[in-house]
Amino acid sequence: MNQAGYSEETMTNVRAEKVREVARLATRTGRARSGEFLAEGPQSVREAMALHLHNAGHGGQPVVRALYATEECLDRYPEFEEMAAKASGVRTRLVSAEVLSAMADTVTPQGIVATCLIPETSLEAVAGLNPRLVAVLCRVQDPGNAGTILRAAAAAGADAVVFTSGSVDIYNPKAVRSTVGSIFHLPVITNADFGHTITTLKAQGCTVLAADGYGAADLDVLQDDSAARRNENQDKAMLEEPRLESPTVWLFGNEGQGLEEAEMARADHRVAVPLYGKVESLNVGTAATVCLYASARAQRRNCT
Amino acid sequence: MNQAGYSEETMTNVRAEKVREVARLATRTGRARSGEFLAEGPQSVREAMALHLHNAGHGGQPVVRALYATEECLDRYPEFEEMAAKASGVRTRLVSAEVLSAMADTVTPQGIVATCLIPETSLEAVAGLNPRLVAVLCRVQDPGNAGTILRAAAAAGADAVVFTSGSVDIYNPKAVRSTVGSIFHLPVITNADFGHTITTLKAQGCTVLAADGYGAADLDVLQDDSAARRNENQDKAMLEEPRLESPTVWLFGNEGQGLEEAEMARADHRVAVPLYGKVESLNVGTAATVCLYASARAQRRNCT
Repeated sequence: MNQAGYSEETMTNVRAEKVREVARLATRTGRARSGEFLAEGPQSVREAMALHLHNAGHGGQPVVRALYATEECLDRYPEFEEMAAKASGVRTRLVSAEVLSAMADTVTPQGIVATCLIPETSLEAVAGLNPRLVAVLCRVQDPGNAGTILRAAAAAGADAVVFTSGSVDIYNPKAVRSTVGSIFHLPVITNADFGHTITTLKAQGCTVLAADGYGAADLDVLQDDSAARRNENQDKAMLEEPRLESPTVWLFGNEGQGLEEAEMARADHRVAVPLYGKVESLNVGTAATVCLYASARAQRRNCT
Repeated sequence: MNQAGYSEETMTNVRAEKVREVARLATRTGRARSGEFLAEGPQSVREAMALHLHNAGHGGQPVVRALYATEECLDRYPEFEEMAAKASGVRTRLVSAEVLSAMADTVTPQGIVATCLIPETSLEAVAGLNPRLVAVLCRVQDPGNAGTILRAAAAAGADAVVFTSGSVDIYNPKAVRSTVGSIFHLPVITNADFGHTITTLKAQGCTVLAADGYGAADLDVLQDDSAARRNENQDKAMLEEPRLESPTVWLFGNEGQGLEEAEMARADHRVAVPLYGKVESLNVGTAATVCLYASARAQRRNCT
């Protein structure tokens, strides 16, 4: 066994200090101490490595610190060896299936995990990109919801996702898994101060929309207005506000309580996703998906 | 303690046969044997009781068989006593917090659970309602996904949700919890034969759309076409197909594999939710949300 990029012998001792170190990335304190988080499974690790190689070629931050894989996994996915050979900064180790299980948070890590550096980014850096679509998650608690919304935001082409302080840690392994690799696709700000976030993004010209089941504005009406502006003439401005095609920050609230009154007070408008059935409310992930896609569509239709 | 509708003494024996019977509703065999499933927590039980009372007044099927609650919960939510007093067919029992925990699947059932009858319904009954919007879930495996999609379908005003054979059991407690009471809002068909489902709904004039990341039709284009038809003139028909405002059956596939080729072959069109970011695919719940809301909006805009 002498694979390019793979050093030393196969790790088989599940009690080794290194194994425990990786396993500790499942805890908030473990991540805080090392500044790393865990990507599990081929798809997530592939996205991490792709970003790592991209950044290496563009003077960006390193992404992957180390890669742990079973021989069986590398036989099945030869691209990891190719990627590892190109990424000189990444330590790579062959491990037994038992060691991989001990390292991973999932029951079935599918043969590969990577330790990744929690990226250094800031709201100011995001603001400097003239963002057109940003999702701000206010105290969302469920890691699966957080990850799913991040994935939906990435699919909608959002420029960044912001988690306010009091939110679940998006670098928690369950949340990372729910992003299915999307966490490597856009800037993510964690532990953000809500007031500072809004002030900074408003200063960039963004309209702030609060997703609120009791909002006065109906998202479907806003979508129709936006389509009508495009169909008639962009210059023949219709004056209804908000305009979905404007640079937009969406606020989404906690699963149980929604947005706090103080948070909604900072928004320019409160927008409701219409409920056509007998249900009382929407899952925050469902509401976020509908809102972000509505903005994405309006921006692409009216601003190209 | 002598509350209207509450019989006998408080149940305190966690090993009682009745407690074990209720706890077995967490298993597929337990549900199959009794024909019941478990609704947990105030919101879900409230929806179950509301439907039960509605059906009692309209000659419909009974919904709730028995209600188990702690005294603390009934003090907090007096409406359950009022509902129970009106619902003569529902057995109600006070239980200790320990008994409730032993009965429930959740760690925190919030003081109340109800055993509910798995409703008797059929595809033929759904077809007889001239459905305009139906979601067909093909081998969706995750109970949280299944429940979230059902909730989104209910919010979009869908007429029914169909689970094909090989799907997760929507009456599994985790799936029921994810619906947050929506399971009581619309007809749900389980263990459906895929071919029979399509044949039956097509015979009712429904267009069948397969949600497929590689689909030739772009959902955003279909939405714009639908809006344009409304803006110009419904009679001045534009001939593009499919029309989102038509009676529609959406097909959504398994989390990992999506729809099978044989399933897509039965669809009239394959429709992709656009991906604006760098992501490779969407969570099935996210895709279903976008598709169902797009149809709901087109139907309400163009068909009123």
